[in-house]
Amino acid sequence: MGISYYTASSLDGFLATEDHSLDWLFEQDFDPEGPMAYPSFIADAGAIVMGANTYQWIMDHQDEWSYEQPTWVFTHRELYIPDGASVWATDDEVEAVGKAAIQAADGRTVWLVGGGDLAGQFADAGLLDEIWVQFAPVTLGQGKPLMTRDLRLELIESAANRSFVCTRYKALSTRESSKD
Amino acid sequence: MGISYYTASSLDGFLATEDHSLDWLFEQDFDPEGPMAYPSFIADAGAIVMGANTYQWIMDHQDEWSYEQPTWVFTHRELYIPDGASVWATDDEVEAVGKAAIQAADGRTVWLVGGGDLAGQFADAGLLDEIWVQFAPVTLGQGKPLMTRDLRLELIESAANRSFVCTRYKALSTRESSKD
Repeated sequence: MGISYYTASSLDGFLATEDHSLDWLFEQDFDPEGPMAYPSFIADAGAIVMGANTYQWIMDHQDEWSYEQPTWVFTHRELYIPDGASVWATDDEVEAVGKAAIQAADGRTVWLVGGGDLAGQFADAGLLDEIWVQFAPVTLGQGKPLMTRDLRLELIESAANRSFVCTRYKALSTRESSKD
Repeated sequence: MGISYYTASSLDGFLATEDHSLDWLFEQDFDPEGPMAYPSFIADAGAIVMGANTYQWIMDHQDEWSYEQPTWVFTHRELYIPDGASVWATDDEVEAVGKAAIQAADGRTVWLVGGGDLAGQFADAGLLDEIWVQFAPVTLGQGKPLMTRDLRLELIESAANRSFVCTRYKALSTRESSKD
């Protein structure tokens, strides 16, 4: 339960290249039945939130909308939504949308897909509960940042899954609010 | 043996804050006798290379020079070197210095301490053999980058050590040189 930011990343903290490519990610070896893998995570998710770039990436790369969970997409633009998809475009405050998603999830986890700045906004609102990062064996040198905030975390779990090192953290606080 | 870039990092790929602070790192819990820890790594190191900023950080924060290994510091400036320290300032090419350090290490590992761009220069020269990253349970949002190159790696080993997730990779190639 709560809101979990679950994402893959390069070893040097990028979600994607500057031009939104994930080619470096999908060429990696991963056991979907292995520890901390996506299938068991998504099975526990009751709602989804994401930013407009993340949504656009899915629209550009997937043949059909594959998520049954109610999904909120943060955007200030018009959004194309496939027929039958439970997707809502919103430009509301992160706090209001986060609370609606938690309510919709009904005790299950809310999956915050990305990107890093949206995750940071949830942290600012005190609504980011966990961060799960699967590190791919790649550095990118530049790209879309994993996180744009100064946060303290607590390690809950870690595991190797083939090429990936999978990590799970509890978000404690922003460093601003935890200063002496 | 070979050259190993061994470093701690924030979860989002920063070695230090923009103003070179490591306070976020030294407040973390780490077992020096635990897996993949520094004492066993440094015991296997026969030479050290680092950039000028890394050297300056050590000078500013340590009472005395504690490394017995011959150490090369890349700099274009004059360098203060403590009496009796086996430290050489150099503005030679990375390739020449790397080969001298490998020779001095005499079959043991060369520790590349940092920073990220120096590690990238060693990768460019084909002289970076391994990358070891100990991830602290912190995000910084900005700071000194872990790596400034696009590299493919192979996971060799990983372990949790109290608050840290420790990883070890073999450097395969730069992505430029591995393109189809």
